[in-house]
Amino acid sequence: MVRIIMHGCNGKMGQVITRLAAEDGNCQIVAGIDTFRGIENTYPVFDNLKDCDVEADVVIDFSNAKAVDGLLEACCEKKLPVVLCTTGLSEEQLQKVEDAAKETAVLKSANMSLGINLLMRLLKDAAKVLAPAGYDIEIVEKHHNKKVDAPSGTALALADAINETQDPQYAYCFDRSQERKPREKREIGISAVRGGTIVGEHEVLFAGEDEVIEFKHTAYSKAVFGKGALEAAKFLAGKPAGRYEMSDVISF
Amino acid sequence: MVRIIMHGCNGKMGQVITRLAAEDGNCQIVAGIDTFRGIENTYPVFDNLKDCDVEADVVIDFSNAKAVDGLLEACCEKKLPVVLCTTGLSEEQLQKVEDAAKETAVLKSANMSLGINLLMRLLKDAAKVLAPAGYDIEIVEKHHNKKVDAPSGTALALADAINETQDPQYAYCFDRSQERKPREKREIGISAVRGGTIVGEHEVLFAGEDEVIEFKHTAYSKAVFGKGALEAAKFLAGKPAGRYEMSDVISF
Amino acid sequence: MVRIIMHGCNGKMGQVITRLAAEDGNCQIVAGIDTFRGIENTYPVFDNLKDCDVEADVVIDFSNAKAVDGLLEACCEKKLPVVLCTTGLSEEQLQKVEDAAKETAVLKSANMSLGINLLMRLLKDAAKVLAPAGYDIEIVEKHHNKKVDAPSGTALALADAINETQDPQYAYCFDRSQERKPREKREIGISAVRGGTIVGEHEVLFAGEDEVIEFKHTAYSKAVFGKGALEAAKFLAGKPAGRYEMSDVISF
Amino acid sequence: MVRIIMHGCNGKMGQVITRLAAEDGNCQIVAGIDTFRGIENTYPVFDNLKDCDVEADVVIDFSNAKAVDGLLEACCEKKLPVVLCTTGLSEEQLQKVEDAAKETAVLKSANMSLGINLLMRLLKDAAKVLAPAGYDIEIVEKHHNKKVDAPSGTALALADAINETQDPQYAYCFDRSQERKPREKREIGISAVRGGTIVGEHEVLFAGEDEVIEFKHTAYSKAVFGKGALEAAKFLAGKPAGRYEMSDVISF
Repeated sequence: MVRIIMHGCNGKMGQVITRLAAEDGNCQIVAGIDTFRGIENTYPVFDNLKDCDVEADVVIDFSNAKAVDGLLEACCEKKLPVVLCTTGLSEEQLQKVEDAAKETAVLKSANMSLGINLLMRLLKDAAKVLAPAGYDIEIVEKHHNKKVDAPSGTALALADAINETQDPQYAYCFDRSQERKPREKREIGISAVRGGTIVGEHEVLFAGEDEVIEFKHTAYSKAVFGKGALEAAKFLAGKPAGRYEMSDVISF
Repeated sequence: MVRIIMHGCNGKMGQVITRLAAEDGNCQIVAGIDTFRGIENTYPVFDNLKDCDVEADVVIDFSNAKAVDGLLEACCEKKLPVVLCTTGLSEEQLQKVEDAAKETAVLKSANMSLGINLLMRLLKDAAKVLAPAGYDIEIVEKHHNKKVDAPSGTALALADAINETQDPQYAYCFDRSQERKPREKREIGISAVRGGTIVGEHEVLFAGEDEVIEFKHTAYSKAVFGKGALEAAKFLAGKPAGRYEMSDVISF
Repeated sequence: MVRIIMHGCNGKMGQVITRLAAEDGNCQIVAGIDTFRGIENTYPVFDNLKDCDVEADVVIDFSNAKAVDGLLEACCEKKLPVVLCTTGLSEEQLQKVEDAAKETAVLKSANMSLGINLLMRLLKDAAKVLAPAGYDIEIVEKHHNKKVDAPSGTALALADAINETQDPQYAYCFDRSQERKPREKREIGISAVRGGTIVGEHEVLFAGEDEVIEFKHTAYSKAVFGKGALEAAKFLAGKPAGRYEMSDVISF
Repeated sequence: MVRIIMHGCNGKMGQVITRLAAEDGNCQIVAGIDTFRGIENTYPVFDNLKDCDVEADVVIDFSNAKAVDGLLEACCEKKLPVVLCTTGLSEEQLQKVEDAAKETAVLKSANMSLGINLLMRLLKDAAKVLAPAGYDIEIVEKHHNKKVDAPSGTALALADAINETQDPQYAYCFDRSQERKPREKREIGISAVRGGTIVGEHEVLFAGEDEVIEFKHTAYSKAVFGKGALEAAKFLAGKPAGRYEMSDVISF
């Protein structure tokens, strides 16, 4: 049973993880850290990690940038592995993360979703087999109508993951309406659909001779990041000092 | 039982329709017209419609532009309704079609697929309800890697059908990668995916508040046009002289 | 501009509708009714509808069964149309709903989702065209792993809607693994997929000769019912006394 | 450039492979074997492999059971690797296949589709990560209305591939309509959809907390087997004697 300290336990993601941990038979939140106390939890809550005297194997952090300095300090002191999910860190703080990783295990990743990180791994394997066999690769992503960038960062990350396995590299094609010509062989078409409140959908197609292989990831809410954080925590418990990524959590 | 003469019976589409008619309990091919005789059919085959003395209710034509003049002449003479599927007619021939429609029933349509024509009707109804309620409309079409135009003519026809119900009109958006801004309310995004040998897939999305309604048409081969022609023939039998469209075949 | 009173404004659905109304240019919440006051709204809140002196065109109710008697009484007195979304009413209360409908406009429906209600209408039209043309009909629904019934009530309602247009009726087939035989012509296969936290997905297929036409509805949260309620309110404002359904809201 | 002899070159699959090879820059059909001569090919055609004096690296066989004995004999004599795609072999012939594999490289597989075989590999990797993390696994397959068995052999093979990675094993669930209860944790639901002329579609879902990961394979015709055979031939050229499978062709 992996014992977790939830740093930022009374925030939205902290509560999502609290609920997910309660349903997970292999881990348990033994303490929470939060200065806000309006929520009742089944575990004791402390103002900061330094003052927390509950024994634990790992910390999950979904707090705010201001709280991260104290967090890293306490993790180094207590030799506690930490899954760091707070975003918006300053350059200076990012350096502190690297420094902390010399003294304890630190996992930090651009995208905490287990599904997306797994997909990246599998897409590389698929591309190694299907690209040389002449299958065309296309990506379609769908997001809500308020999103200002297109294509999504995740769509580009998926395309980049595929491209890592290719030499020469594929070009990315975002628009086919301006030219009359057949598809180029070494390109990845990336289409961005926008509408309603769609949280995030990514579909990668490998289209060959009378055959299509599709990989699709659908997120229904930000809870997917909580699930990923929990898996990361179970992985990180007991690991030696060092920098880890979500891709390390995925071992076949 | 509708009795059909298959004009161009030994061509590829003629044979597809021969097979489909054999499986259909409500119609029957009673004669074929073709100058090529390499294929054995269960019905008698004649060199041209003029010489065919078998009684019938309707003609389906999938031949070639050169054969169409004689076909129209014979249909007018025999007062035989005709489903005209041959494409690539000259301006002069198109005029002859209009003339023939004064003497017998002539059905000619840009797209013979029953499914696509039905979809156009239903999309109009959906748009009348969902567009004023704020649902965003997007179209994704997928075709093989040899197709030179994008988006497909059918995707544009579907968008046009939706737009017919709207005032002011929606603009079409083919690329979102060049700007950083939220989606415009009165636009239809149209994405074109190209890969492998995909025959044709059209997907129309209405995305609202935590809800997506999708309409999707997938063609697996050109046989869909044969099926549509057969339904058109059953509809056209017994109809008075005039010009008909596939949309007329669809009656709720 | 339709002026709405939100009955149960500080409950979960009341807040969803408050947010949706703020984004909708054609309606406005002018007052709320709730005994709980922990939430700040942009409109005045009253303990009960009787005491509310704000002029309005229609009431949306997402409260609880206990509050419904007083609501109906006040609506009749004030001749206020009401969209009644509270569920779990007693037999006695259901009778009161019918009585109230004699004095004011009352809309009450089994499923408040605009999308599902629209789909039912369109499926009937599609079935009238495609069933006689020999297309096979199949339904696949997907829900979370806690759902105890299968197939979903909505899947059966969609099948029933299709069946209303058919004579003789189609049989429903829930399992094909126990027999070795080709598909029966006059059946609708209904498959139930269960997994994770899927809110609700319904897909209806019409599969013909090398062609598939799909209709799909995806709900991402219960907000879809809020959206439907808002559309219902805009429809109901100004309507004469009587019982209304969501299907009345959908006019082509 | 891999030089291929196409055994059964004038059959349907032989012609599909002839077309695919012509479009493939890394291989070339240098000779065909067929007793039927009604088709003109760009390569010389012989009555049997024994009489063929063209130098080659590998044989692809899509002929018939009767021709297989002579084929195996000639391949052993000429030390020619062979991709054996003919089905319906007798027990005695299957033994001859094993014997031949002692003298030359022989590739024979239950399913020649590259996509399905790749999917099996990737699903195992996905299941190793997602099953322990609590994701539910479901399979939906779709086939034409003439298919007598359900679920499809391929759906069961995909489920078996997943199950190989699990201990204890998952149970397969084909029908959920007879019981009212939440989903069992250690089961794979398998749904069979039947309709029209659908060639074959397999979809595997991993559904977790607010997240679904889907793997989908769509076959549009039997050409997918030709494509797989060609990839197998390129792989097998130059390999030592032994029995090979399609899964060997897939190397990441």
